[in-house]
Amino acid sequence: MKTDYDVIVIGMGPAGITAAIYLKRANLNCLIIEKNTPGGLLNKTSTIENYPGIIQIAGPELAYKFYEQINAQQIPQKFEEVKEIIDSNEYKKVITNKGEYTAKKVIIAIGREPKKLKNTSGKRLEGKGISFCSLCDGALYKNEEVSIVGGGNSALEEALYLSEICKKVTIINRSDSLKGDPVLVDKVKDKENIEVINNSEVKEFHGKNKKLEYITLKTDKGDKDLYVKACFIFIGYEPATKFLKNLEILDEKGYINVDESRRTKVKGIYAAGDIVKKEAYQIITASSDGAIAAVSCIKDLMN
Amino acid sequence: MKTDYDVIVIGMGPAGITAAIYLKRANLNCLIIEKNTPGGLLNKTSTIENYPGIIQIAGPELAYKFYEQINAQQIPQKFEEVKEIIDSNEYKKVITNKGEYTAKKVIIAIGREPKKLKNTSGKRLEGKGISFCSLCDGALYKNEEVSIVGGGNSALEEALYLSEICKKVTIINRSDSLKGDPVLVDKVKDKENIEVINNSEVKEFHGKNKKLEYITLKTDKGDKDLYVKACFIFIGYEPATKFLKNLEILDEKGYINVDESRRTKVKGIYAAGDIVKKEAYQIITASSDGAIAAVSCIKDLMN
Repeated sequence: MKTDYDVIVIGMGPAGITAAIYLKRANLNCLIIEKNTPGGLLNKTSTIENYPGIIQIAGPELAYKFYEQINAQQIPQKFEEVKEIIDSNEYKKVITNKGEYTAKKVIIAIGREPKKLKNTSGKRLEGKGISFCSLCDGALYKNEEVSIVGGGNSALEEALYLSEICKKVTIINRSDSLKGDPVLVDKVKDKENIEVINNSEVKEFHGKNKKLEYITLKTDKGDKDLYVKACFIFIGYEPATKFLKNLEILDEKGYINVDESRRTKVKGIYAAGDIVKKEAYQIITASSDGAIAAVSCIKDLMN
Repeated sequence: MKTDYDVIVIGMGPAGITAAIYLKRANLNCLIIEKNTPGGLLNKTSTIENYPGIIQIAGPELAYKFYEQINAQQIPQKFEEVKEIIDSNEYKKVITNKGEYTAKKVIIAIGREPKKLKNTSGKRLEGKGISFCSLCDGALYKNEEVSIVGGGNSALEEALYLSEICKKVTIINRSDSLKGDPVLVDKVKDKENIEVINNSEVKEFHGKNKKLEYITLKTDKGDKDLYVKACFIFIGYEPATKFLKNLEILDEKGYINVDESRRTKVKGIYAAGDIVKKEAYQIITASSDGAIAAVSCIKDLMN
């Protein structure tokens, strides 16, 4: 059957854009679809200093550079929201809010969103003191005091990481004890420069000139102001994959199951980037994922 | 025991440089060692158009940008040749041609070299028509005639890839038949724009103005001139890992065995980049590997 495209890439973050670049260079007819802004989470990152080849760049600027590259290669693009993917063996149908497109293969690179705190006005300080990635932003706060929201494994791991860089790390923990693995909890307790405030939550973030200044905490002993340069929020992620349920490629947390080649168990469907469970959620690892998914896809199309 | 460094990174290609950037940002005391030129194989690549975030750049220029980044982050570096790594459980000793350095962890990112043709003067045309990577350079020769040297699986896969981009692909094969898997051999034979010249080898490469013009082949029917814009050489790779034999981390071809987290089976020794067996040997995948090895190393140091 003749399909509209050889490959449809869903998502215009680092993984999807890199996949599209590799597909186009293999002379394939590909479409890339995005529901929001090109660049994905890059747009919510302040300064990036760990993307190799570029010493320092603002997140949105790197997002634009990625986007420029698919424009330079004249890769067809649509800004639509994918509602469903139907697998008909010999072809895939991608249904959006505006139309239907067929392709031989589909690469899913829709990323994930970090969970936000409700009932605060923190949104305006994202990338200006409020961060969702300590590997990305920790080094910006060397020898400063910072805080972490969360009490699970990822919050504790990030606290240990930040404690090696920052002067002091205060963990804002909603429960009456840390919920991570005992070995991590012990390590956090051993660190002299980590303080844990149990039974506490963020009531409000305060800052002017687009910079976080202090946080008002609601604690069991009343309200308390915490002066920190940064607040890292690790209360989980939301992979928005409900629309893929029919394909049966999701794990219990909503991530897409893939092998090392980024193939899912459905022939002709691949996944790349933050929507896949992996060791490190970074721009460089997402881009690499996109390249690997594209290479697998190219190999399969030759067969 | 107090070691000279927390981590020693061996190799200053994309994998090693990325690893060093991540380690430094975690506030670790790391040393990076290189025996030749910073940037590794980047220095032998002409135009790069598939590194996301940078539309187009010359290989050596990207190499310099990578190198600038470790300078900007003031990462200590030595230009020495590593002769041996000794694993003493609680620390590692790296012995070079000029000295000995101890560290808690070592990341090996020494890359690999493509095998070259002997008895030709092709070296001067590398990156100027002679290439070792069709994913990297194939798109530069869209609708042109190109050639491939080799007759094994990788040569045949690359021929199929290039046949979708280029007008014609001529395979220069030394034996009297193709040595790849029958399924690949069949596919190559089915392609109208792939020609195979058996019992042939490159006698000399000709070019002026730093551009390949034609190749003189030695065949069983005498010498023959082949006019092509590019010649892709796929006769294998040489991972230069003999000096690591004592660690027992090599596979039968000399690559370093690692798991997905880029840990080897020797505690505290990691490997990243082209020296590891993987799906795609690209700048972006090597850099990603470096980041993953560094993140694993950082986690292990916190434990």
